[in-house]
Amino acid sequence: MDGVSWAQCDLRDPLAVRALLEAKRPKTLMHLAWRAAYGGLWGSPENFDWIPLSFSLARAFADAGGERMVFCGSCAEYSWDGGLCTEDSTPLVPSTVYGWSKASLHHALQGLAMQTGVSLAWARPFFIYGEGEHSSRLGAAVIEGLLRGEPVETSHGLQIRDYMHVADVADGLAALAGDPALGDFNIASGEAIRVLDLVTEIAKQLDREDLLRVGARPAPAFEPPVILGDVTKAKETLGWTRSIALSEGVARAIAWSKDASPAAI
Amino acid sequence: MDGVSWAQCDLRDPLAVRALLEAKRPKTLMHLAWRAAYGGLWGSPENFDWIPLSFSLARAFADAGGERMVFCGSCAEYSWDGGLCTEDSTPLVPSTVYGWSKASLHHALQGLAMQTGVSLAWARPFFIYGEGEHSSRLGAAVIEGLLRGEPVETSHGLQIRDYMHVADVADGLAALAGDPALGDFNIASGEAIRVLDLVTEIAKQLDREDLLRVGARPAPAFEPPVILGDVTKAKETLGWTRSIALSEGVARAIAWSKDASPAAI
Repeated sequence: MDGVSWAQCDLRDPLAVRALLEAKRPKTLMHLAWRAAYGGLWGSPENFDWIPLSFSLARAFADAGGERMVFCGSCAEYSWDGGLCTEDSTPLVPSTVYGWSKASLHHALQGLAMQTGVSLAWARPFFIYGEGEHSSRLGAAVIEGLLRGEPVETSHGLQIRDYMHVADVADGLAALAGDPALGDFNIASGEAIRVLDLVTEIAKQLDREDLLRVGARPAPAFEPPVILGDVTKAKETLGWTRSIALSEGVARAIAWSKDASPAAI
Repeated sequence: MDGVSWAQCDLRDPLAVRALLEAKRPKTLMHLAWRAAYGGLWGSPENFDWIPLSFSLARAFADAGGERMVFCGSCAEYSWDGGLCTEDSTPLVPSTVYGWSKASLHHALQGLAMQTGVSLAWARPFFIYGEGEHSSRLGAAVIEGLLRGEPVETSHGLQIRDYMHVADVADGLAALAGDPALGDFNIASGEAIRVLDLVTEIAKQLDREDLLRVGARPAPAFEPPVILGDVTKAKETLGWTRSIALSEGVARAIAWSKDASPAAI
């Protein structure tokens, strides 16, 4: 890509991070890296390691003359009791180790922004699907299973989640990076999609509804009925909303899975 | 003291901390250490270093079989807009780097408690005075100035603060350590004391009201009119309230300053 230079650095090595930032002196920082082990992510103690590592990155960025930073939190920071998550009113009472760790980092960064004057925005993505997804995650698992002609078992699927296509998430993060807005922003669709809607849309597009086994698996013991992002603040402050509807997003994800190497499927 | 063994360790050395805790295997941890530079404390970036150092201590404690931990936050975690600070309703929107750093640590510890099952209580002391106080802090500065026969200049002194004697703070922390209660607790007097009340009480007891120059100094630009702790939760959950009234606390602080070496005054 023109005008882009790539550099690589291990964020677990704070001295290397500092050297890189001093050399490049970027004005804008977007930080998404985190432990992302599938299955155990939300309860894993490795989340704790990413609090100081992420914070070290932010301090080094500020020290190297950085001006604008966008960090990535999560809908998991919110209390999920109420369903609709609104930035400045829903209590921040996470249900997971992951959520507490993100909230901890956010507070430390707010202190850093206060101390250094660096501009800080904090993004809260919700549920993500789309091309490039790991096979253990819902969307990719259903697509790959149906492509192999195997039955796909799900829970009742009536949980409402704020599903958004991965390209929309990226678009929202870019909007936030290019805006001077401060504070926390949901990066969400605002659309109440049942898990069943996502699964059924995939099966319809693949013409394999016959392989769906809805209700064959028990729902997890802890399963909030609704996790939905309020999109008002992002719309009014950033002028940003998601643009990829579920049918289009699913079509893109399916096309990507079909192109992926058979070994990956 | 009988039954007490002392051990010393540099908290900035996580390996030494871990070795000590593995050797002693304490069941209860109370952690108060923090950067406490007078004057610059609330804005100092050194607060940031104490987030991961404190968290490392907690992890090492949990790994060594610890059961109950009491950590020390601050009234500075609260939004000071409302005056009365109540544990489960006042927004946690700090006005200082110190406050954000404490809030960040609290969230990380909540994640750790969730992940390990270690019991966590989080204390929020308010304003402290009493024997042993550093000469740059209000109570000690007034006492020592008047003992030297010097005029003492203050602002208007109408700011209401939750002042509590240091022995009551220690008593509240001990009550918290000995109780199984989870969550955050104000360690506060609940008494609306004007800064002027504290200063005047000292001057009266020293019979040097003639040396007070109230209003001679401008109040700081950022000066919340009221910072007061709600004591309901500590009273109802722990059965704890402060026991040392202002007059008694001031008398104790004065006696200590008189006994202190002249060099310290």
